[in-house]
Amino acid sequence: MSRVYNFSAGPSCLPEEALAEAAAELLEYGNSGQSVMEMSHRSKDYGAIIHETEALLRELLAVGEDYAVLFMQGGASLQFACVPLNLTVCGKAAYVDTGVWADKAAQEAGRYTSVTVAASSKDTNYTRIPQVPPLEGDWDYLHITLNNTILGTAWREGLPGCGAVPLVADASSCILSEPLDVHKFGLIYAGAQKNLGPAGAAVVLIRRDLLERTPAASTPVMLRYRTYSENESMYNTPPCYTIYMIGKVLKWVKRNGGALGMKKRNEAKAALLYSYLDSSPFYRAPA
Amino acid sequence: MSRVYNFSAGPSCLPEEALAEAAAELLEYGNSGQSVMEMSHRSKDYGAIIHETEALLRELLAVGEDYAVLFMQGGASLQFACVPLNLTVCGKAAYVDTGVWADKAAQEAGRYTSVTVAASSKDTNYTRIPQVPPLEGDWDYLHITLNNTILGTAWREGLPGCGAVPLVADASSCILSEPLDVHKFGLIYAGAQKNLGPAGAAVVLIRRDLLERTPAASTPVMLRYRTYSENESMYNTPPCYTIYMIGKVLKWVKRNGGALGMKKRNEAKAALLYSYLDSSPFYRAPA
Repeated sequence: MSRVYNFSAGPSCLPEEALAEAAAELLEYGNSGQSVMEMSHRSKDYGAIIHETEALLRELLAVGEDYAVLFMQGGASLQFACVPLNLTVCGKAAYVDTGVWADKAAQEAGRYTSVTVAASSKDTNYTRIPQVPPLEGDWDYLHITLNNTILGTAWREGLPGCGAVPLVADASSCILSEPLDVHKFGLIYAGAQKNLGPAGAAVVLIRRDLLERTPAASTPVMLRYRTYSENESMYNTPPCYTIYMIGKVLKWVKRNGGALGMKKRNEAKAALLYSYLDSSPFYRAPA
Repeated sequence: MSRVYNFSAGPSCLPEEALAEAAAELLEYGNSGQSVMEMSHRSKDYGAIIHETEALLRELLAVGEDYAVLFMQGGASLQFACVPLNLTVCGKAAYVDTGVWADKAAQEAGRYTSVTVAASSKDTNYTRIPQVPPLEGDWDYLHITLNNTILGTAWREGLPGCGAVPLVADASSCILSEPLDVHKFGLIYAGAQKNLGPAGAAVVLIRRDLLERTPAASTPVMLRYRTYSENESMYNTPPCYTIYMIGKVLKWVKRNGGALGMKKRNEAKAALLYSYLDSSPFYRAPA
Protein backbone atom coordinates (compact mmCIF):
# COMPACT_ATOMS: atom_id res chain seq x y z
CA MET A 1 0.00 0.00 0.00
CA SER A 2 1.20 3.47 -0.83
CA ARG A 3 0.11 5.91 1.86
CA VAL A 4 -1.47 9.16 0.79
CA TYR A 5 -0.61 12.49 2.45
CA ASN A 6 -3.73 14.47 3.24
CA PHE A 7 -3.28 18.25 3.46
CA SER A 8 -7.03 18.93 3.25
CA ALA A 9 -9.49 20.59 5.59
CA GLY A 10 -10.24 18.69 8.77
CA PRO A 11 -8.58 15.41 9.73
CA SER A 12 -4.88 14.80 9.02
CA CYS A 13 -2.39 11.97 8.66
CA LEU A 14 -1.80 9.82 11.72
CA PRO A 15 1.42 7.92 12.47
CA GLU A 16 1.32 4.56 10.72
CA GLU A 17 2.67 2.82 13.85
CA ALA A 18 -0.24 4.16 15.92
CA LEU A 19 -2.72 2.90 13.34
CA ALA A 20 -1.02 -0.52 13.16
CA GLU A 21 -1.14 -0.90 16.95
CA ALA A 22 -4.81 0.06 16.97
CA ALA A 23 -5.60 -2.43 14.21
CA ALA A 24 -3.87 -5.24 16.12
CA GLU A 25 -5.86 -4.41 19.28
CA LEU A 26 -9.16 -3.60 17.66
CA LEU A 27 -10.89 -6.89 18.48
CA GLU A 28 -9.31 -7.35 21.89
CA TYR A 29 -7.45 -4.87 24.07
CA GLY A 30 -4.84 -6.70 26.14
CA ASN A 31 -6.54 -9.67 27.78
CA SER A 32 -9.76 -7.78 28.37
CA GLY A 33 -11.89 -9.98 26.10
CA GLN A 34 -13.23 -6.90 24.33
CA SER A 35 -12.48 -3.98 22.06
CA VAL A 36 -11.76 -0.56 23.55
CA MET A 37 -14.91 0.48 21.63
CA GLU A 38 -17.01 -1.84 23.82
CA MET A 39 -15.51 -1.20 27.25
CA SER A 40 -17.38 0.56 29.99
CA HIS A 41 -15.78 3.93 30.58
CA ARG A 42 -16.11 3.05 34.28
CA SER A 43 -13.92 -0.06 33.87
CA LYS A 44 -10.41 -0.38 35.29
CA ASP A 45 -8.94 -0.93 31.80
CA TYR A 46 -10.51 2.21 30.39
CA GLY A 47 -9.61 4.26 33.45
CA ALA A 48 -5.96 3.32 32.85
CA ILE A 49 -6.22 4.39 29.19
CA ILE A 50 -7.68 7.86 29.82
CA HIS A 51 -5.35 8.54 32.75
CA GLU A 52 -2.30 7.52 30.72
CA THR A 53 -3.42 9.73 27.83
CA GLU A 54 -3.78 12.70 30.16
CA ALA A 55 -0.37 11.98 31.76
CA LEU A 56 1.30 11.85 28.32
CA LEU A 57 -0.24 15.14 27.29
CA ARG A 58 0.95 16.72 30.54
CA GLU A 59 4.45 15.33 30.03
CA LEU A 60 4.82 16.26 26.34
CA LEU A 61 3.51 19.80 26.83
CA ALA A 62 5.06 20.22 30.31
CA VAL A 63 1.67 21.05 31.82
CA GLY A 64 1.83 21.74 35.55
CA GLU A 65 -0.63 20.59 38.19
CA ASP A 66 -2.00 24.12 38.31
CA TYR A 67 -3.77 23.29 35.03
CA ALA A 68 -6.63 20.88 34.46
CA VAL A 69 -6.59 18.75 31.29
CA LEU A 70 -10.07 18.10 29.92
CA PHE A 71 -11.32 15.85 27.13
CA MET A 72 -14.47 17.25 25.58
CA GLN A 73 -16.49 16.80 22.36
CA GLY A 74 -17.72 19.10 19.61
CA GLY A 75 -14.34 20.25 18.32
CA ALA A 76 -12.91 23.76 18.51
CA SER A 77 -16.21 25.12 17.17
CA LEU A 78 -17.98 24.21 20.39
CA GLN A 79 -15.12 25.76 22.37
CA PHE A 80 -15.93 29.06 20.63
CA ALA A 81 -19.05 29.04 22.86
CA CYS A 82 -17.56 27.31 25.92
CA VAL A 83 -14.84 29.94 26.41
CA PRO A 84 -17.16 32.94 26.88
CA LEU A 85 -19.81 30.84 28.64
CA ASN A 86 -17.27 29.81 31.30
CA LEU A 87 -14.95 32.80 31.56
CA THR A 88 -17.30 35.78 31.54
CA VAL A 89 -17.24 37.90 34.69
CA CYS A 90 -17.14 41.57 33.71
CA GLY A 91 -18.66 40.88 30.27
CA LYS A 92 -15.85 42.21 28.07
CA ALA A 93 -13.61 40.00 25.94
CA ALA A 94 -10.89 40.97 23.45
CA TYR A 95 -10.30 38.99 20.24
CA VAL A 96 -7.48 39.22 17.72
CA ASP A 97 -8.78 38.75 14.18
CA THR A 98 -6.25 36.80 12.14
CA GLY A 99 -8.50 34.90 9.79
CA VAL A 100 -11.62 32.84 9.30
CA TRP A 101 -11.31 30.75 12.50
CA ALA A 102 -10.46 33.75 14.68
CA ASP A 103 -13.47 35.54 13.23
CA LYS A 104 -15.77 32.56 13.84
CA ALA A 105 -14.58 32.42 17.46
CA ALA A 106 -15.33 36.13 17.93
CA GLN A 107 -18.73 35.90 16.24
CA GLU A 108 -19.80 33.03 18.48
CA ALA A 109 -18.50 34.77 21.63
CA GLY A 110 -20.62 37.80 20.70
CA ARG A 111 -23.70 35.80 21.73
CA TYR A 112 -22.59 35.80 25.37
CA THR A 113 -20.29 38.74 25.99
CA SER A 114 -19.26 42.10 24.58
CA VAL A 115 -16.53 41.37 22.04
CA THR A 116 -13.90 43.94 21.09
CA VAL A 117 -11.54 43.24 18.19
CA ALA A 118 -8.26 44.31 19.79
CA ALA A 119 -6.30 43.95 16.54
CA SER A 120 -6.89 42.62 13.04
CA SER A 121 -4.91 41.85 9.91
CA LYS A 122 -8.00 41.77 7.74
CA ASP A 123 -6.85 44.94 5.91
CA THR A 124 -3.90 43.03 4.46
CA ASN A 125 -6.00 39.94 3.75
CA TYR A 126 -4.68 38.20 6.88
CA THR A 127 -1.16 37.78 5.51
CA ARG A 128 0.47 38.92 8.75
CA ILE A 129 0.01 38.72 12.53
CA PRO A 130 -1.07 42.17 13.73
CA GLN A 131 0.46 44.15 16.58
CA VAL A 132 -1.83 44.05 19.63
CA PRO A 133 -1.93 47.32 21.58
CA PRO A 134 -1.80 47.04 25.40
CA LEU A 135 -5.18 46.26 26.94
CA GLU A 136 -6.45 48.88 29.38
CA GLY A 137 -9.19 48.39 31.96
CA ASP A 138 -11.03 45.17 32.79
CA TRP A 139 -11.17 42.27 30.34
CA ASP A 140 -12.25 38.69 30.98
CA TYR A 141 -9.67 37.33 28.53
CA LEU A 142 -7.79 37.95 25.29
CA HIS A 143 -8.38 35.36 22.56
CA ILE A 144 -5.92 34.48 19.79
CA THR A 145 -5.80 31.79 17.12
CA LEU A 146 -2.28 30.38 17.37
CA ASN A 147 -2.05 29.04 13.86
CA ASN A 148 -4.23 30.15 10.99
CA THR A 149 -4.72 27.26 8.60
CA ILE A 150 -6.19 29.11 5.66
CA LEU A 151 -3.40 31.64 5.04
CA GLY A 152 -0.61 29.99 6.96
CA THR A 153 0.27 32.70 9.48
CA ALA A 154 1.24 31.78 13.03
CA TRP A 155 2.22 33.47 16.28
CA ARG A 156 5.91 32.58 16.46
CA GLU A 157 7.29 34.79 19.17
CA GLY A 158 6.04 37.88 20.90
CA LEU A 159 2.68 36.64 22.15
CA PRO A 160 0.59 39.71 22.97
CA GLY A 161 1.39 41.10 26.40
CA CYS A 162 -1.84 41.24 28.35
CA GLY A 163 -0.69 41.40 31.97
CA ALA A 164 -3.19 39.80 34.33
CA VAL A 165 -5.77 39.27 31.57
CA PRO A 166 -5.79 35.54 30.77
CA LEU A 167 -4.59 34.69 27.28
CA VAL A 168 -6.84 32.12 25.58
CA ALA A 169 -5.66 30.31 22.46
CA ASP A 170 -7.14 28.08 19.81
CA ALA A 171 -4.23 25.72 19.12
CA SER A 172 -6.16 23.25 16.95
CA SER A 173 -3.77 23.15 14.04
CA CYS A 174 -0.45 23.55 15.86
CA ILE A 175 -0.68 21.82 19.24
CA LEU A 176 2.35 19.56 19.75
CA SER A 177 3.80 20.56 16.37
CA GLU A 178 6.54 22.34 18.35
CA PRO A 179 7.24 23.18 22.01
CA LEU A 180 4.77 25.63 23.54
CA ASP A 181 5.01 27.38 26.90
CA VAL A 182 1.57 26.46 28.19
CA HIS A 183 2.05 28.58 31.31
CA LYS A 184 1.81 31.78 29.26
CA PHE A 185 -1.85 30.94 28.69
CA GLY A 186 -4.92 30.85 30.87
CA LEU A 187 -6.61 28.39 28.53
CA ILE A 188 -5.60 26.46 25.41
CA TYR A 189 -8.05 24.42 23.39
CA ALA A 190 -7.59 22.23 20.34
CA GLY A 191 -9.72 19.97 18.22
CA ALA A 192 -7.95 16.61 18.19
CA GLN A 193 -8.10 15.92 14.48
CA LYS A 194 -5.13 17.93 13.26
CA ASN A 195 -2.24 16.72 15.41
CA LEU A 196 -3.55 14.57 18.25
CA GLY A 197 -5.75 11.84 16.85
CA PRO A 198 -8.99 11.22 14.95
CA ALA A 199 -11.84 13.74 14.91
CA GLY A 200 -14.34 13.64 17.76
CA ALA A 201 -12.54 15.11 20.75
CA ALA A 202 -11.30 18.48 21.88
CA VAL A 203 -8.54 18.92 24.43
CA VAL A 204 -8.74 21.82 26.89
CA LEU A 205 -5.88 22.93 29.16
CA ILE A 206 -7.20 25.40 31.71
CA ARG A 207 -5.44 27.12 34.60
CA ARG A 208 -7.32 25.98 37.67
CA ASP A 209 -8.08 29.45 39.04
CA LEU A 210 -10.20 30.06 35.92
CA LEU A 211 -12.39 27.11 36.90
CA GLU A 212 -13.59 29.24 39.82
CA ARG A 213 -15.42 31.62 37.49
CA THR A 214 -19.12 30.82 37.65
CA PRO A 215 -20.89 30.24 34.34
CA ALA A 216 -24.30 31.80 33.80
CA ALA A 217 -27.17 29.58 35.01
CA SER A 218 -28.19 29.01 31.41
CA THR A 219 -24.90 27.28 30.53
CA PRO A 220 -25.55 23.61 29.64
CA VAL A 221 -23.99 21.12 32.07
CA MET A 222 -22.07 19.60 29.17
CA LEU A 223 -20.53 22.98 28.25
CA ARG A 224 -19.22 23.74 31.75
CA TYR A 225 -15.52 23.11 32.26
CA ARG A 226 -16.13 22.15 35.87
CA THR A 227 -18.35 19.26 34.76
CA TYR A 228 -15.20 17.79 33.20
CA SER A 229 -12.60 18.87 35.78
CA GLU A 230 -14.67 17.43 38.64
CA ASN A 231 -15.38 14.13 36.88
CA GLU A 232 -12.05 13.32 35.18
CA SER A 233 -13.78 14.07 31.84
CA MET A 234 -16.24 11.24 32.52
CA TYR A 235 -19.42 12.95 33.72
CA ASN A 236 -21.11 11.08 30.89
CA THR A 237 -19.64 8.59 28.44
CA PRO A 238 -16.61 10.26 26.81
CA PRO A 239 -15.51 9.60 23.20
CA CYS A 240 -13.62 6.57 24.53
CA TYR A 241 -12.01 5.30 21.35
CA THR A 242 -10.93 8.73 20.14
CA ILE A 243 -9.18 9.33 23.47
CA TYR A 244 -7.53 5.91 23.20
CA MET A 245 -6.24 6.87 19.73
CA ILE A 246 -4.93 10.19 21.08
CA GLY A 247 -2.98 8.10 23.59
CA LYS A 248 -1.50 6.02 20.74
CA VAL A 249 -0.45 9.16 18.87
CA LEU A 250 1.05 10.72 22.00
CA LYS A 251 3.13 7.59 22.66
CA TRP A 252 4.45 7.86 19.10
CA VAL A 253 5.24 11.56 19.63
CA LYS A 254 7.14 10.65 22.80
CA ARG A 255 9.13 7.93 21.01
CA ASN A 256 9.97 10.45 18.31
CA GLY A 257 11.45 13.18 20.43
CA GLY A 258 8.38 14.87 21.90
CA ALA A 259 7.39 18.39 20.92
CA LEU A 260 10.95 19.26 19.88
CA GLY A 261 11.15 16.15 17.72
CA MET A 262 7.88 17.19 16.03
CA LYS A 263 9.28 20.68 15.40
CA LYS A 264 12.31 19.20 13.59
CA ARG A 265 10.15 16.88 11.48
CA ASN A 266 7.82 19.75 10.60
CA GLU A 267 10.66 22.07 9.65
CA ALA A 268 12.02 19.40 7.31
CA LYS A 269 8.57 18.88 5.79
CA ALA A 270 7.94 22.63 5.45
CA ALA A 271 11.34 23.17 3.80
CA LEU A 272 10.43 20.60 1.18
CA LEU A 273 6.97 22.05 0.57
CA TYR A 274 7.80 25.76 0.64
CA SER A 275 11.00 25.42 -1.41
CA TYR A 276 8.78 23.86 -4.06
CA LEU A 277 6.09 26.54 -3.69
CA ASP A 278 8.64 29.38 -3.69
CA SER A 279 10.39 28.05 -6.80
CA SER A 280 7.14 27.36 -8.60
CA PRO A 281 5.97 29.72 -11.35
CA PHE A 282 2.40 28.73 -10.47
CA TYR A 283 2.00 28.82 -6.67
CA ARG A 284 2.60 31.80 -4.47
CA ALA A 285 2.82 31.53 -0.68
CA PRO A 286 1.61 34.86 0.67
CA ALA A 287 2.63 34.33 4.32
CA MET B 1 -9.98 -15.27 22.52
CA SER B 2 -13.10 -15.60 24.64
CA ARG B 3 -15.28 -12.55 24.21
CA VAL B 4 -16.64 -10.88 27.31
CA TYR B 5 -20.24 -9.65 27.58
CA ASN B 6 -20.38 -6.17 29.03
CA PHE B 7 -23.66 -5.25 30.77
CA SER B 8 -22.11 -2.20 32.49
CA ALA B 9 -22.87 1.50 32.36
CA GLY B 10 -22.00 3.22 29.11
CA PRO B 11 -20.63 1.44 26.04
CA SER B 12 -21.88 -2.02 25.07
CA CYS B 13 -20.86 -5.05 23.02
CA LEU B 14 -20.51 -4.51 19.29
CA PRO B 15 -20.98 -7.21 16.64
CA GLU B 16 -17.69 -9.10 16.22
CA GLU B 17 -18.09 -9.00 12.42
CA ALA B 18 -18.27 -5.20 12.46
CA LEU B 19 -15.11 -5.03 14.59
CA ALA B 20 -13.28 -7.51 12.33
CA GLU B 21 -14.15 -5.49 9.22
CA ALA B 22 -12.95 -2.31 10.91
CA ALA B 23 -9.68 -3.95 11.97
CA ALA B 24 -9.02 -5.14 8.40
CA GLU B 25 -9.65 -1.63 7.04
CA LEU B 26 -7.99 0.35 9.81
CA LEU B 27 -4.77 1.12 7.94
CA GLU B 28 -6.36 1.59 4.54
CA TYR B 29 -9.99 2.08 3.58
CA GLY B 30 -10.63 0.59 0.15
CA ASN B 31 -7.93 1.87 -2.18
CA SER B 32 -7.88 5.31 -0.59
CA GLY B 33 -4.30 5.06 0.69
CA GLN B 34 -5.42 6.14 4.16
CA SER B 35 -7.37 5.20 7.25
CA VAL B 36 -10.91 6.50 7.72
CA MET B 37 -9.43 8.26 10.78
CA GLU B 38 -7.22 10.37 8.52
CA MET B 39 -9.63 11.23 5.71
CA SER B 40 -10.88 14.73 5.15
CA HIS B 41 -14.57 14.84 6.01
CA ARG B 42 -14.90 16.83 2.76
CA SER B 43 -13.51 13.93 0.68
CA LYS B 44 -15.58 11.85 -1.72
CA ASP B 45 -14.79 8.64 0.20
CA TYR B 46 -15.96 10.08 3.50
CA GLY B 47 -19.04 11.64 1.94
CA ALA B 48 -20.04 8.18 0.72
CA ILE B 49 -19.56 6.73 4.24
CA ILE B 50 -21.70 9.27 6.09
CA HIS B 51 -24.42 9.25 3.43
CA GLU B 52 -24.59 5.46 3.47
CA THR B 53 -24.79 5.45 7.27
CA GLU B 54 -27.68 7.90 7.17
CA ALA B 55 -29.43 5.88 4.45
CA LEU B 56 -29.11 2.66 6.50
CA LEU B 57 -30.53 4.33 9.59
CA ARG B 58 -33.44 5.64 7.53
CA GLU B 59 -34.06 2.19 6.04
CA LEU B 60 -33.78 0.21 9.29
CA LEU B 61 -36.02 2.59 11.25
CA ALA B 62 -38.31 3.38 8.27
CA VAL B 63 -37.64 7.10 8.65
CA GLY B 64 -39.49 9.20 6.06
CA GLU B 65 -38.14 12.19 4.18
CA ASP B 66 -40.21 14.43 6.45
CA TYR B 67 -37.55 13.77 9.11
CA ALA B 68 -33.95 14.96 9.19
CA VAL B 69 -31.29 12.57 10.47
CA LEU B 70 -28.48 14.36 12.33
CA PHE B 71 -25.15 13.13 13.68
CA MET B 72 -24.05 15.20 16.66
CA GLN B 73 -21.60 14.89 19.56
CA GLY B 74 -21.86 15.08 23.34
CA GLY B 75 -24.15 12.09 23.87
CA ALA B 76 -27.70 12.15 25.17
CA SER B 77 -26.59 14.43 28.02
CA LEU B 78 -25.97 17.29 25.59
CA GLN B 79 -29.35 16.59 23.98
CA PHE B 80 -30.94 17.29 27.37
CA ALA B 81 -29.99 20.93 26.64
CA CYS B 82 -30.42 20.89 22.85
CA VAL B 83 -34.07 19.83 23.02
CA PRO B 84 -35.35 22.83 25.03
CA LEU B 85 -32.86 25.21 23.37
CA ASN B 86 -34.27 24.34 19.94
CA LEU B 87 -37.93 23.58 20.59
CA THR B 88 -39.00 26.31 22.98
CA VAL B 89 -41.73 28.62 21.66
CA CYS B 90 -44.34 29.14 24.38
CA GLY B 91 -41.88 28.25 27.16
CA LYS B 92 -43.70 25.28 28.69
CA ALA B 93 -42.45 21.70 28.42
CA ALA B 94 -43.84 18.53 29.99
CA TYR B 95 -41.58 15.72 31.22
CA VAL B 96 -42.43 12.22 32.38
CA ASP B 97 -40.23 11.18 35.30
CA THR B 98 -39.38 7.50 35.01
CA GLY B 99 -35.92 7.42 36.53
CA VAL B 100 -32.50 8.95 36.81
CA TRP B 101 -32.07 9.79 33.10
CA ALA B 102 -35.57 11.23 32.77
CA ASP B 103 -34.92 13.35 35.84
CA LYS B 104 -31.56 14.58 34.50
CA ALA B 105 -33.25 15.55 31.22
CA ALA B 106 -35.91 17.53 33.10
CA GLN B 107 -33.38 19.23 35.39
CA GLU B 108 -31.30 20.38 32.45
CA ALA B 109 -34.36 21.60 30.53
CA GLY B 110 -35.31 23.68 33.56
CA ARG B 111 -32.44 26.04 32.68
CA TYR B 112 -34.22 27.13 29.50
CA THR B 113 -37.94 26.57 29.86
CA SER B 114 -40.65 26.03 32.43
CA VAL B 115 -40.72 22.29 33.14
CA THR B 116 -43.81 20.50 34.41
CA VAL B 117 -43.57 16.89 35.51
CA ALA B 118 -46.65 15.50 33.79
CA ALA B 119 -46.37 12.11 35.48
CA SER B 120 -43.89 10.28 37.68
CA SER B 121 -43.31 6.81 39.04
CA LYS B 122 -40.91 8.02 41.70
CA ASP B 123 -43.41 7.12 44.45
CA THR B 124 -42.99 3.44 43.59
CA ASN B 125 -39.23 3.76 43.14
CA TYR B 126 -39.60 3.88 39.35
CA THR B 127 -40.68 0.25 39.05
CA ARG B 128 -43.48 1.09 36.59
CA ILE B 129 -44.30 3.41 33.71
CA PRO B 130 -46.83 5.98 35.00
CA GLN B 131 -50.13 6.90 33.38
CA VAL B 132 -49.80 10.30 31.70
CA PRO B 133 -52.96 12.47 31.99
CA PRO B 134 -54.04 14.32 28.81
CA LEU B 135 -52.14 17.58 28.29
CA GLU B 136 -54.31 20.69 28.22
CA GLY B 137 -53.32 24.07 26.83
CA ASP B 138 -50.09 24.97 25.05
CA TRP B 139 -46.95 22.88 25.42
CA ASP B 140 -43.78 22.95 23.36
CA TYR B 141 -43.29 19.19 23.69
CA LEU B 142 -43.73 16.16 25.93
CA HIS B 143 -40.50 14.36 26.82
CA ILE B 144 -40.22 10.68 27.70
CA THR B 145 -37.30 8.29 28.28
CA LEU B 146 -38.17 5.26 26.19
CA ASN B 147 -36.09 2.76 28.12
CA ASN B 148 -34.86 3.25 31.65
CA THR B 149 -31.58 1.43 32.10
CA ILE B 150 -31.29 1.58 35.86
CA LEU B 151 -34.54 -0.16 36.82
CA GLY B 152 -35.36 -1.80 33.52
CA THR B 153 -38.77 -0.32 32.77
CA ALA B 154 -39.72 0.59 29.20
CA TRP B 155 -42.62 2.08 27.29
CA ARG B 156 -43.94 -0.98 25.46
CA GLU B 157 -47.26 0.09 24.09
CA GLY B 158 -49.58 2.95 24.83
CA LEU B 159 -47.24 5.88 24.27
CA PRO B 160 -48.80 8.90 25.96
CA GLY B 161 -51.44 10.55 23.80
CA CYS B 162 -50.46 14.18 23.41
CA GLY B 163 -52.38 15.29 20.31
CA ALA B 164 -50.56 18.02 18.42
CA VAL B 165 -47.89 18.39 21.10
CA PRO B 166 -44.69 16.81 19.72
CA LEU B 167 -43.52 13.73 21.58
CA VAL B 168 -39.76 13.80 22.24
CA ALA B 169 -37.97 10.63 23.30
CA ASP B 170 -34.57 9.66 24.63
CA ALA B 171 -34.05 6.28 22.94
CA SER B 172 -30.39 5.87 23.91
CA SER B 173 -30.63 2.41 25.33
CA CYS B 174 -33.30 0.91 23.06
CA ILE B 175 -32.91 2.39 19.57
CA LEU B 176 -32.92 -0.40 16.99
CA SER B 177 -33.38 -3.05 19.68
CA GLU B 178 -36.86 -3.57 18.22
CA PRO B 179 -39.07 -1.89 15.60
CA LEU B 180 -40.19 1.62 16.56
CA ASP B 181 -42.78 3.77 14.80
CA VAL B 182 -40.64 6.88 14.42
CA HIS B 183 -43.55 8.83 13.00
CA LYS B 184 -45.29 8.90 16.38
CA PHE B 185 -42.49 11.20 17.56
CA GLY B 186 -41.50 14.76 16.83
CA LEU B 187 -37.93 14.05 17.84
CA ILE B 188 -35.94 11.00 18.90
CA TYR B 189 -32.38 11.19 20.15
CA ALA B 190 -29.94 8.50 21.19
CA GLY B 191 -26.34 8.33 22.30
CA ALA B 192 -24.64 5.89 19.92
CA GLN B 193 -22.82 3.80 22.49
CA LYS B 194 -25.58 1.45 23.57
CA ASN B 195 -26.86 -0.03 20.31
CA LEU B 196 -25.40 1.85 17.35
CA GLY B 197 -21.63 1.97 17.69
CA PRO B 198 -18.81 3.30 19.86
CA ALA B 199 -19.25 6.29 22.18
CA GLY B 200 -18.77 9.76 20.72
CA ALA B 201 -21.84 10.41 18.61
CA ALA B 202 -25.51 11.09 19.16
CA VAL B 203 -28.16 10.44 16.53
CA VAL B 204 -31.13 12.81 16.27
CA LEU B 205 -34.24 12.15 14.18
CA ILE B 206 -36.31 15.32 13.96
CA ARG B 207 -39.53 16.04 12.08
CA ARG B 208 -38.62 18.81 9.67
CA ASP B 209 -41.37 21.21 10.74
CA LEU B 210 -39.73 21.38 14.18
CA LEU B 211 -36.57 22.72 12.54
CA GLU B 212 -38.55 25.89 11.81
CA ARG B 213 -38.68 26.78 15.50
CA THR B 214 -36.15 29.53 16.14
CA PRO B 215 -33.67 28.95 18.98
CA ALA B 216 -32.91 31.83 21.34
CA ALA B 217 -30.02 34.03 20.13
CA SER B 218 -27.87 32.70 22.96
CA THR B 219 -27.99 29.14 21.62
CA PRO B 220 -24.49 28.01 20.54
CA VAL B 221 -24.15 27.34 16.80
CA MET B 222 -23.04 23.80 17.61
CA LEU B 223 -26.20 23.13 19.66
CA ARG B 224 -28.62 24.25 16.92
CA TYR B 225 -30.28 21.43 14.99
CA ARG B 226 -30.37 23.56 11.85
CA THR B 227 -26.56 23.82 11.88
CA TYR B 228 -26.59 20.06 11.27
CA SER B 229 -29.63 19.75 9.00
CA GLU B 230 -28.34 22.48 6.67
CA ASN B 231 -24.80 21.05 6.48
CA GLU B 232 -25.39 17.30 6.29
CA SER B 233 -23.99 17.07 9.85
CA MET B 234 -20.68 18.48 8.59
CA TYR B 235 -20.71 22.16 9.62
CA ASN B 236 -17.44 21.37 11.35
CA THR B 237 -15.47 18.12 11.42
CA PRO B 238 -17.86 15.40 12.61
CA PRO B 239 -16.76 12.40 14.70
CA CYS B 240 -15.83 10.68 11.42
CA TYR B 241 -14.66 7.30 12.67
CA THR B 242 -17.52 6.87 15.13
CA ILE B 243 -20.00 7.49 12.30
CA TYR B 244 -18.11 4.98 10.11
CA MET B 245 -18.42 2.39 12.91
CA ILE B 246 -22.15 3.12 13.24
CA GLY B 247 -22.37 2.30 9.53
CA LYS B 248 -20.60 -1.03 10.13
CA VAL B 249 -23.01 -1.89 12.95
CA LEU B 250 -26.05 -0.90 10.88
CA LYS B 251 -24.92 -3.13 8.01
CA TRP B 252 -24.67 -5.99 10.49
CA VAL B 253 -28.16 -5.19 11.83
CA LYS B 254 -29.49 -5.24 8.26
CA ARG B 255 -27.84 -8.61 7.52
CA ASN B 256 -29.38 -9.96 10.72
CA GLY B 257 -32.98 -9.13 10.05
CA GLY B 258 -33.15 -5.41 10.83
CA ALA B 259 -35.06 -4.09 13.82
CA LEU B 260 -37.31 -7.15 13.95
CA GLY B 261 -34.27 -9.44 13.87
CA MET B 262 -32.82 -7.48 16.79
CA LYS B 263 -36.08 -7.83 18.73
CA LYS B 264 -35.96 -11.64 18.33
CA ARG B 265 -32.31 -11.81 19.40
CA ASN B 266 -33.01 -9.59 22.41
CA GLU B 267 -36.04 -11.61 23.48
CA ALA B 268 -33.93 -14.75 23.42
CA LYS B 269 -31.18 -13.04 25.44
CA ALA B 270 -33.68 -11.57 27.92
CA ALA B 271 -35.39 -14.94 28.41
CA LEU B 272 -32.04 -16.45 29.35
CA LEU B 273 -31.15 -13.63 31.72
CA TYR B 274 -34.50 -13.08 33.38
CA SER B 275 -35.27 -16.80 33.79
CA TYR B 276 -32.01 -16.98 35.71
CA LEU B 277 -32.79 -13.86 37.75
CA ASP B 278 -36.36 -14.96 38.46
CA SER B 279 -35.27 -18.42 39.60
CA SER B 280 -32.41 -17.05 41.68
CA PRO B 281 -32.74 -16.88 45.46
CA PHE B 282 -30.35 -13.93 45.37
CA TYR B 283 -31.42 -11.56 42.59
CA ARG B 284 -34.79 -9.89 42.29
CA ALA B 285 -35.92 -8.11 39.13
CA PRO B 286 -38.32 -5.39 40.29
CA ALA B 287 -39.64 -4.39 36.84
